[in-house]
Amino acid sequence: MVYDIIATSGSTPYLIGYIVTALASGLLYFLLSKKWDNVPKKFPIIHFFIVTWSGLMYLNFLNATPLSDFGWYMDWMVSTPLILLALGLTAMHNSKTRWDLLGLLMGLQFMLVVTGIISQESGMTFAYWIGNALLLGVIYLLWGPFKQMAYETSDTLGKSYTTLASYISVFFVLYPVVWYIGIPGPLNVLNGFQTSVAFVVLPFFCKQVYGFLDMYMIHKAEEEMA
Amino acid sequence: MVYDIIATSGSTPYLIGYIVTALASGLLYFLLSKKWDNVPKKFPIIHFFIVTWSGLMYLNFLNATPLSDFGWYMDWMVSTPLILLALGLTAMHNSKTRWDLLGLLMGLQFMLVVTGIISQESGMTFAYWIGNALLLGVIYLLWGPFKQMAYETSDTLGKSYTTLASYISVFFVLYPVVWYIGIPGPLNVLNGFQTSVAFVVLPFFCKQVYGFLDMYMIHKAEEEMA
Amino acid sequence: MVYDIIATSGSTPYLIGYIVTALASGLLYFLLSKKWDNVPKKFPIIHFFIVTWSGLMYLNFLNATPLSDFGWYMDWMVSTPLILLALGLTAMHNSKTRWDLLGLLMGLQFMLVVTGIISQESGMTFAYWIGNALLLGVIYLLWGPFKQMAYETSDTLGKSYTTLASYISVFFVLYPVVWYIGIPGPLNVLNGFQTSVAFVVLPFFCKQVYGFLDMYMIHKAEEEMA
Repeated sequence: MVYDIIATSGSTPYLIGYIVTALASGLLYFLLSKKWDNVPKKFPIIHFFIVTWSGLMYLNFLNATPLSDFGWYMDWMVSTPLILLALGLTAMHNSKTRWDLLGLLMGLQFMLVVTGIISQESGMTFAYWIGNALLLGVIYLLWGPFKQMAYETSDTLGKSYTTLASYISVFFVLYPVVWYIGIPGPLNVLNGFQTSVAFVVLPFFCKQVYGFLDMYMIHKAEEEMA
Repeated sequence: MVYDIIATSGSTPYLIGYIVTALASGLLYFLLSKKWDNVPKKFPIIHFFIVTWSGLMYLNFLNATPLSDFGWYMDWMVSTPLILLALGLTAMHNSKTRWDLLGLLMGLQFMLVVTGIISQESGMTFAYWIGNALLLGVIYLLWGPFKQMAYETSDTLGKSYTTLASYISVFFVLYPVVWYIGIPGPLNVLNGFQTSVAFVVLPFFCKQVYGFLDMYMIHKAEEEMA
Repeated sequence: MVYDIIATSGSTPYLIGYIVTALASGLLYFLLSKKWDNVPKKFPIIHFFIVTWSGLMYLNFLNATPLSDFGWYMDWMVSTPLILLALGLTAMHNSKTRWDLLGLLMGLQFMLVVTGIISQESGMTFAYWIGNALLLGVIYLLWGPFKQMAYETSDTLGKSYTTLASYISVFFVLYPVVWYIGIPGPLNVLNGFQTSVAFVVLPFFCKQVYGFLDMYMIHKAEEEMA
C-alpha cells in the first residue's frame, strides 16, 4: 500500500539518485580513509554500511518485493543505530569504549523504528508515541553521558562531538515529524511524492553527508591533538 | 490464524496489563539502579530491553499487523536470549567474560525459538522436538559450566546464581509445555483464552519479576563481598 | 513460487540427507573438540551454528512456511557470515582480533545475500550484480589483509589459511553462478531438481566438511607450533 503510493508518485528519479549517491559515498569513505589515515578504520567501515545498506533497501521502492511496504523501516532498523554507533564512538574517541551505553543507545533507536512499523501496519498511533518516548531517551543519552565523555577527553573533541550531535539531533527529530504528517502517519498533509522526496532528502544529509562530516571532524581533532 | 484466535478470546485486558507493566518495569530498573549503585549498569540495560521489547511485540496482539501471527516468537527471539545473557553475566560477575559460552547459550535459545515458528507454520511437530533438544543444551550449560563459574568466584554468588538458574529453568521448561498443549501445538488442551493468559503469566515472571530479582541478587552479593 | 518448484522437483531425499548430516555434524564438532583440545572452543561453537542454522532453514523446504520461498537466503544470511568469521578468526589465530575487519567481512557477505532476495523477488538483475561487487570486496579482504595477518603469525598458519581461503573462495564464487543459471536467476539452465541438489552439494562442502577441515587445520598448526 505504502509502496504503491510511493512507486506511482513520480519520485523514482529522486530514489535512483539516492541509491547511486549512497553506493558511491560508500566507496569514497574508503578512498578518503587512505588520505586521512589518522581516522580509525572502524569509522569508514561503519559509514560504508550506513549508506550501502540504505541504498540496497531503497531498491525495494523501484520494484515490488515483500519488503517494499517496509522499505524505510528495513533501512532505518540497521542504518540509524549505526549512525548513533558512529556518533557514540566519536564521543568515546581516545577513551574507553562503554559498550553498555552504546548498546542502550542503539537498542533504543532500533525499538523506536519498530514502533513505526507497528504503528503503520496496525493504525495504533499510540505505538508512534511510545517511539517518541524512546527518541527522548536517545536525545538524553546524546546530550548527557555521551557529551560529557567527549569533553572529558578534550575540548576539541567535545566541540566536534557537539556539532555532530546537534546535526543528528535535528534530523532525528525531523524524521518522526515527516512520518506523522506524511503517508505512513495519520495526518496526510504530505502526499506520496512529498513524503518520498522528504525521505530522500533527510537521509541524504543524515547518511551520505554525515559520513564525510564525521570523518572530517575526527581527522581534524586528531591533527590538533598531535 | 493464531492472532485471530488470541484477539477474539477475550484476553485483551491481560495483554494490556502485560504491556503496561512491561514498559513500567523498564523505567523502574533504571530508577532502581540509581539506588543500588553497586549493580553494573549493563544489568538494568539488559532487563530494560527484555521487558520493553516484549511489551512492544505484544502490541501486535492488540491490532493486526503482519507480525501478529508470530508475536510470541518475535518477542522470544530477542527477549529470551537476553534473559540468558543476564543470567550468564550474573554467573560471570567479577570474573572473566566468556563470550564463546555466552554466544553458545544465546544462539541455542534463539534457534529453539525459530523451531517454534517452523513447527507452528509447517505443522512438522518434529521441528518442535529439535527445539527441545536445543533446550536440553541450554539447561546443560546453565547447570554445568555456568554454575561452576559462579561458584569459582564465591559461594555467595554461586548460591544467588543457583536460585536464579532454578527460577529460569522451571519457566523455560514450562514454555514448550504450554506451547505443546496450547493453540500453536498439536494437542489443543488449552483454548485461545487459556493459551493467551498462560503466555502473559509465564513471561511476567520470567521478565518483569526476574529483572528485579536478578538486580537484587547482584546488589546483595556485592554488599556481602564488600 | 521458488518453494513450489523445489518441493515438487523430487529433491526431498537430498534435502533430508542435508538436514540430518548438518545436525549430526553440529554434535560431532563438540565431540571432536574434546579430543583436539588445542582448538579454541569458539571454533566448534561457530561451526555448530553454521550447520545447525542451515539444517533448520532447510526444514522450510520440506513443508510450506512463510519462509519457504526465502529458505536459501535465510540460511545464507546467518551461515555464510559465520563461515567467514571462522575463516577470519583462523587468520587471526594467536594474534590480535581485528573486529573492524571481521565486521566488514561479515557485513559485506550479509548484504550480498540480501541482494539475492531483492533480485529474486523484484526481477531486477542489477541487484544481483551489486551483490557480485560486494563479493569482490569479500575476496579482496580474504586474499589481502587476512592472508597477510595469517603469514605474519607463522608460515604454518599462513599455509593452512591459504588452503582454507582457496577452498571457501571457489565455493563462494560457485554460489552466484548456480543462482544465475538456476531457478532464482534469469537463465533457467538448471531446472528445479538440479538447482535444489546443487544447493545441497555446495553447502555440504562449505559447511559440514569445512567445519572438520578448519578444526583439523588449527589442531595441526597448534601441534607444530608446540
